[in-house]
Amino acid sequence: MKIISDQYYINVHSEHNKPAEHASDGEIVIFQTRDCYNRLVQTEEKTLEEQVGEEPDNPSTGPLYVDGAEPGDVIAVDILDITVADHGVVAIGCGPFRNKEEKEPFHILPVRDGRVRFQDVEWDIDPMVGVVGTAMPGREIGIINAFEGGGNMDSRIIRKGATVWLPVRVPGALLVMGDIHASMGDGEVCGTGLEIDGEITVRVRLLKNFELNWPVTETKDAWYVNSCGDTCDDAIRAGYMEMRRLIAKAYGWSLEDAAFYMTLRGYLESNQACLVPHDTFRVGTPKVNGKPRLIG
Amino acid sequence: MKIISDQYYINVHSEHNKPAEHASDGEIVIFQTRDCYNRLVQTEEKTLEEQVGEEPDNPSTGPLYVDGAEPGDVIAVDILDITVADHGVVAIGCGPFRNKEEKEPFHILPVRDGRVRFQDVEWDIDPMVGVVGTAMPGREIGIINAFEGGGNMDSRIIRKGATVWLPVRVPGALLVMGDIHASMGDGEVCGTGLEIDGEITVRVRLLKNFELNWPVTETKDAWYVNSCGDTCDDAIRAGYMEMRRLIAKAYGWSLEDAAFYMTLRGYLESNQACLVPHDTFRVGTPKVNGKPRLIG
Repeated sequence: MKIISDQYYINVHSEHNKPAEHASDGEIVIFQTRDCYNRLVQTEEKTLEEQVGEEPDNPSTGPLYVDGAEPGDVIAVDILDITVADHGVVAIGCGPFRNKEEKEPFHILPVRDGRVRFQDVEWDIDPMVGVVGTAMPGREIGIINAFEGGGNMDSRIIRKGATVWLPVRVPGALLVMGDIHASMGDGEVCGTGLEIDGEITVRVRLLKNFELNWPVTETKDAWYVNSCGDTCDDAIRAGYMEMRRLIAKAYGWSLEDAAFYMTLRGYLESNQACLVPHDTFRVGTPKVNGKPRLIG
Repeated sequence: MKIISDQYYINVHSEHNKPAEHASDGEIVIFQTRDCYNRLVQTEEKTLEEQVGEEPDNPSTGPLYVDGAEPGDVIAVDILDITVADHGVVAIGCGPFRNKEEKEPFHILPVRDGRVRFQDVEWDIDPMVGVVGTAMPGREIGIINAFEGGGNMDSRIIRKGATVWLPVRVPGALLVMGDIHASMGDGEVCGTGLEIDGEITVRVRLLKNFELNWPVTETKDAWYVNSCGDTCDDAIRAGYMEMRRLIAKAYGWSLEDAAFYMTLRGYLESNQACLVPHDTFRVGTPKVNGKPRLIG
């Protein structure tokens, strides 16, 4: 088992990032991660702007070099566990409810006994990982963005028990993880969940030579393509196209039959729809007893 | 109990439609409904175009005049039961998978023992109601459209056990229902589910003087604003705004606190995202023990 300390954090997905650690097929790795504000928000007595300054959001841990991973392969990231710290930050950072004339509203909320309390309501935490990404050749991609190699997908179903399948585009894949939320709503309308420090325990696996154009989240019951775009419409369209292709290929169906099946049985939920560029969605299909897996 | 025969069908939501039936607060009414093609698709031996011709889609049953309903009120439509016929039609009528150069692909699928079979897969039916709408003053709205009074929302959670809350804009509300699908995927990517004849049994209830700007679906566990727009972004934005207002009002919170809560705990799923005008979404919030209801 390897541990990557949160001292190894990056702000840009890049093939030029020096690997913080190596892992082989099947190995377990712990990513220790910082909250999206790099721990700079410590009090409600000062503004968020005063505390954070120009620091970029979402410092994320890695990269992990997956031995043997080559362009054209896919890696599986099994989320074995996520633990979180004892407090987090929620803010209205962007989205339709953000008033840019005013200081950014925020709260520091305690996490006690696995519960979040806000006003007079409390609920169980449901930790998820915002940033799960690989590097792309010839591109430097800010850690705040989602892209076809993953990144800041902000999907609340990337939680304990899920597997994220990611296309490999550079040798070693260069896996980066971070931006844990103790709780986050679908759509993440204000651009934040409960942003928090934590640890992510994963198993990485390698699948050689498989065409994958967008990250896929596998849950116990379903498969979801994670796609993004400058608008929600763009993101959804991309997800539809990839899901149709994956279903047709796995089930040995025509693209037309895959389309019928999706309109009869598909899922379509939002990961992050702040209505600023880089909205992300998940286009899903149920697992079916006796039918082939979509990947792996 | 009243029964409205499918002989009473309309193609336009209008305040000028003559009521097919009246009901008082709390009364149970059965809507008998036609499939979206008005039963014109009966064989796979002819094209869909040959069978349907210029007939408008979604002939829907009604309207029902709810006694005592006045503009500024809200009606609740409790979906007590939905039964369906023994076969339905699925087609690739629109959306990103539609090739307009070719004849519209379609299938007639049997429904047997509560199951749909397609290719080598079968699954339980999950009947839902596509059109649930009221009339608007001064506007004639085609039955294929969704709008702030409901209409063709195509939400798969409008199923047995759900309640749809609709704003009343004309005397009697003029409730219309139809367009049952035996099975439909979120997003309804091809513009159809399994389109089928059936019967919808509802209880109508009247809530006097309540501000509601979009239809709301209540399930056992959650509340969902149903909103629409020419783009997915527009639809989602409208739903966010209404949900924030409803939460703030019901819980006695500021709009800012409602926004924090939504970004920590909201739901965002698609009803119909064919990526042609009139995409519809549902913006949700969980029910919480001890907290007030959002409506009623």
